[in-house]
Amino acid sequence: MKLAPLVLVSLSLAFAGAFAQQPSAPAPAAATPAQRVVSPEVHADRQVTFRLGAPKATEVVLTGEFMRGSKPLVKDERGIWSVTVGPLEPEIYHYNFTVDGLKIVDPANAELKTGSTAQTLQSSLTVRGDAPAFYDGRAVPHGEIHTHWYDSKSLKTQRRLTVYVPPGYEADTAARLPVLYLLHGANADETAWYRLGRANLILDNLLAEGKIKPFLVVMPFAYGMPPGTPRGERDNTTMFGVDLTEDVIPFIESRYRVKADREHRALMGLSMGGGIALRLGPNRLLDLFAYSGGFSSGLGRPEDFPRDYAELIADPSKSNGKIRLLWIGCGREDGAFKASKALSEFLTTNNIKHTFRETDGAHTWIVWRRYLHEVAPQLFR
Amino acid sequence: MKLAPLVLVSLSLAFAGAFAQQPSAPAPAAATPAQRVVSPEVHADRQVTFRLGAPKATEVVLTGEFMRGSKPLVKDERGIWSVTVGPLEPEIYHYNFTVDGLKIVDPANAELKTGSTAQTLQSSLTVRGDAPAFYDGRAVPHGEIHTHWYDSKSLKTQRRLTVYVPPGYEADTAARLPVLYLLHGANADETAWYRLGRANLILDNLLAEGKIKPFLVVMPFAYGMPPGTPRGERDNTTMFGVDLTEDVIPFIESRYRVKADREHRALMGLSMGGGIALRLGPNRLLDLFAYSGGFSSGLGRPEDFPRDYAELIADPSKSNGKIRLLWIGCGREDGAFKASKALSEFLTTNNIKHTFRETDGAHTWIVWRRYLHEVAPQLFR
Repeated sequence: MKLAPLVLVSLSLAFAGAFAQQPSAPAPAAATPAQRVVSPEVHADRQVTFRLGAPKATEVVLTGEFMRGSKPLVKDERGIWSVTVGPLEPEIYHYNFTVDGLKIVDPANAELKTGSTAQTLQSSLTVRGDAPAFYDGRAVPHGEIHTHWYDSKSLKTQRRLTVYVPPGYEADTAARLPVLYLLHGANADETAWYRLGRANLILDNLLAEGKIKPFLVVMPFAYGMPPGTPRGERDNTTMFGVDLTEDVIPFIESRYRVKADREHRALMGLSMGGGIALRLGPNRLLDLFAYSGGFSSGLGRPEDFPRDYAELIADPSKSNGKIRLLWIGCGREDGAFKASKALSEFLTTNNIKHTFRETDGAHTWIVWRRYLHEVAPQLFR
Repeated sequence: MKLAPLVLVSLSLAFAGAFAQQPSAPAPAAATPAQRVVSPEVHADRQVTFRLGAPKATEVVLTGEFMRGSKPLVKDERGIWSVTVGPLEPEIYHYNFTVDGLKIVDPANAELKTGSTAQTLQSSLTVRGDAPAFYDGRAVPHGEIHTHWYDSKSLKTQRRLTVYVPPGYEADTAARLPVLYLLHGANADETAWYRLGRANLILDNLLAEGKIKPFLVVMPFAYGMPPGTPRGERDNTTMFGVDLTEDVIPFIESRYRVKADREHRALMGLSMGGGIALRLGPNRLLDLFAYSGGFSSGLGRPEDFPRDYAELIADPSKSNGKIRLLWIGCGREDGAFKASKALSEFLTTNNIKHTFRETDGAHTWIVWRRYLHEVAPQLFR
């Protein structure tokens, strides 16, 4: 069974089941020792061994979402570095090696976290439990992922967006569905929520369990200016906000059979995208979005909240009558926690109804997948 | 303009135009010097500088599709290694660094060649010319990319496939279109032909130029057994072949408005997928595929050709009456060249009409994008 761990992490998620039934085979020959090693190798007890072939290195260190701090690897006589951690809880984690001070992805691992900047580059580790997780592909009806190029008149370009189309949409040509607009974080792109967030599989599973009714999920590219641009006269929320409301939403409502009113639109996001969703959503409560939410949100300064939410707090009973959901979630180990808590307190002080979910966790996809799984059943009820 | 090169390579291809108009900004602070450097930086004269922050390394070497062999980087007093190459022809290239014997991707570059195994991991370099290339996104109508999960009864799993749906398909609900089934190579997956091969943009551009009529492109996952499995009683062509003919084609013909006959089906592929296409296609000439083609194909042994093509060569005039295209292309610098030439000679000897295209180039996407661009106008005429 020497190839099994390599195959399991290397193949696209939906194939693991089939290939686990295939006979094992020796790993194919490769150019360098770094690619000949198996890494990561998940053992039956969910301990995980990481390996790196680097005979000339003097120090190799592992960092990852499954532990605090770092852990050194140890070199054997062939120049293969290794370390074993765990047992780990079933989950999808990201990690890096640092080789003599140089932070790299695992050269033996095909599964990567990529995005719109290199700062997000990490290797992926999937630890499976005895039963499929809520984000795993199961033998249930699956939706489709559509990638579109659309004209952004506001940004004067053509750009991409991704749509999750739930199972049944194509067959039921009379149905019109609600839409969740779901935004990624900094350094990510319009593919992040389905590649890393597994939004499609999470919703496929919730649908199969009868916990949600079908809706579309639209995942745009939430940058209206280049990543890393400092906030100036034009900020990203404003720039992207125009693209979203004047280009993305009209495009979606012309291409798909959707319900085009505020009661059937939600705007949510994570990190940078959570900041956009929690500023834009409540401010377009009356005409665009009855549902808003932010996960580990990148919020502005609390002293600006009275200005940012002037209209929302002006007449709380009017606003509360329109709010179907205003959801703020953050992990206690997350640098964004304080700001999320401050926003919740500000809303409480101003009598605006909302949900503040304080959970375990840091600034990772582990938290965001769970939040989507928790929030989705609260939408469009 | 310090951020520009970083931004250009970092962002999804369609956004470069918009962001090039944005004001420049300092690169955001990052954790390690490796991520603070700009790499690769394409200069106005199309020379390219590669950089790596690795103060403790003793040797750093560059390899890439833009040159033969390798080139050493030189370290400056801050521990930043660099080398400048070119000027390079406008093209999309892949490259690696090797740091003290360890082959890695460029930690400062968000654009990667990824696949179903780690052996394919490389960084991407896009060198733009004065005019858009045939594979660049242009201001023309764009098709959609659909990702499906389908039930493979033959492989007893659910697996993914990708479909290019040309512009106009959704609007013209009376049209039924032909289908090109297009296969990836070893270590790649069902996303390779659009992410790396730009199949969608190449066809969008050909359509806009009036050089092709619309057709669907179906890009399945062309592994029927795990990557690297040695050929035994069951080989990948057989295993995947059953999935293709019994699961993929029926799925496509039930989901899309397509013409379901041999005159409107083509089967093509590259490398491993070219080997599958050139074995399966001509052998299902009578019932499934009037068009077959292989790019840099991974073919079997020439001594097996008489057995592999027994039916095709039995009655050349009958076969030739059915062949609309049998296309074999390979670059002279490609290790697969000899086998492609041998197949062409075998077909010539047996009076089977076909096209053999002998071109410049090696075993790279540079060649395969050009072949698709050349072959597409010969389909479904």
